[in-house]
Amino acid sequence: MSDIKEIIAALLKFRNERDWEQFHNSKDLAVALNIEAGELLESFLWKSHEEASKEKVQEELADVFAYAFLLADKYNLDVKDIVLDKIRKNGEKYPVEKAKGTAKKYNEL
Amino acid sequence: MSDIKEIIAALLKFRNERDWEQFHNSKDLAVALNIEAGELLESFLWKSHEEASKEKVQEELADVFAYAFLLADKYNLDVKDIVLDKIRKNGEKYPVEKAKGTAKKYNEL
Amino acid sequence: MSDIKEIIAALLKFRNERDWEQFHNSKDLAVALNIEAGELLESFLWKSHEEASKEKVQEELADVFAYAFLLADKYNLDVKDIVLDKIRKNGEKYPVEKAKGTAKKYNEL
Amino acid sequence: MSDIKEIIAALLKFRNERDWEQFHNSKDLAVALNIEAGELLESFLWKSHEEASKEKVQEELADVFAYAFLLADKYNLDVKDIVLDKIRKNGEKYPVEKAKGTAKKYNEL
Repeated sequence: MSDIKEIIAALLKFRNERDWEQFHNSKDLAVALNIEAGELLESFLWKSHEEASKEKVQEELADVFAYAFLLADKYNLDVKDIVLDKIRKNGEKYPVEKAKGTAKKYNEL
Repeated sequence: MSDIKEIIAALLKFRNERDWEQFHNSKDLAVALNIEAGELLESFLWKSHEEASKEKVQEELADVFAYAFLLADKYNLDVKDIVLDKIRKNGEKYPVEKAKGTAKKYNEL
Repeated sequence: MSDIKEIIAALLKFRNERDWEQFHNSKDLAVALNIEAGELLESFLWKSHEEASKEKVQEELADVFAYAFLLADKYNLDVKDIVLDKIRKNGEKYPVEKAKGTAKKYNEL
Repeated sequence: MSDIKEIIAALLKFRNERDWEQFHNSKDLAVALNIEAGELLESFLWKSHEEASKEKVQEELADVFAYAFLLADKYNLDVKDIVLDKIRKNGEKYPVEKAKGTAKKYNEL
């Protein structure tokens, strides 16, 4: 079993033991993901990036991943496929010769 | 190579070809993750969860995963380890006998 | 003094007594606003809109407003002017005859 | 009429002309606020705080305020009252003698 399948299986087991599927509609999963992304961001508030606590980042990033994987599962999306597909699309929006060394958005290149 | 290692390798290749590592400090990666989480959430705005477009969810979820994987790489965190570790900790905060069938937060159980 | 000026004056007094201006650059204020927006959203997680606690909404909405007003002050923006200006612009993007009764985005109308 | 009442009246007029109250339940307003907070944050992505465009900040901050005011109206909350009340509470969590000059969270002071 791939590592991603293993993670999702563990998340679903945890959820089903608690009978939480009833709460996990896709909209609330996206809401939960945003809340956790905000908690992750709190690791960096009023700080430079070097000053964040790795332990806090780890805890909150794990929560972000948990809801992201649950959402992928909800929509039957293969995580590797959708990320590699997005990289392909971004390669068209950000061709190396235009995007190299600049942080500009594609519509400003 | 595991799926996750393969995804991260593809993301780093994309980034390094464009010389973007200079912009990818951990704080800005967390900022980027929040922006993408907000775009994902937009799929559900003014809608019930059934009405969201799967295509839009897929596009935005891929972006969320991209920045989450880049952050994990930045801190040398193993994604499977940190998610399984968090599930273990959540198991203590949400024991089955207390948490079953309720959406209450652990401090209200 | 207008009510908005009064609120901003109280926020600045609180901040300056604590010598916190040094932390309140505009980027971290925007980060703080996002974190608070996430906490506000938590009032609604796994719930219908009727089930949210008004007390929690009030607490978190107050924090959102605090950082929004501090950001407006940082950029010398007049809150009434910028909101009324945005309403004017949105009136052009969402003309009544096209937008009435639909939640579609302006680029889908 | 106070500035805040005037802003809210203009927002409600805009909304009611378009018959949008049906979409504006409190949960979706909080979702919309998070999306706009994310767009505001995008002004600062991959940038130092000095490099953000004031025009973009103004546009997105206006949207944040719009949904924050609509939420306050939805719950019949007086914006000045709730912000001043929160400042009072924060004064207890962050007494000047402990909090002066430090960005630590109240539970770390």
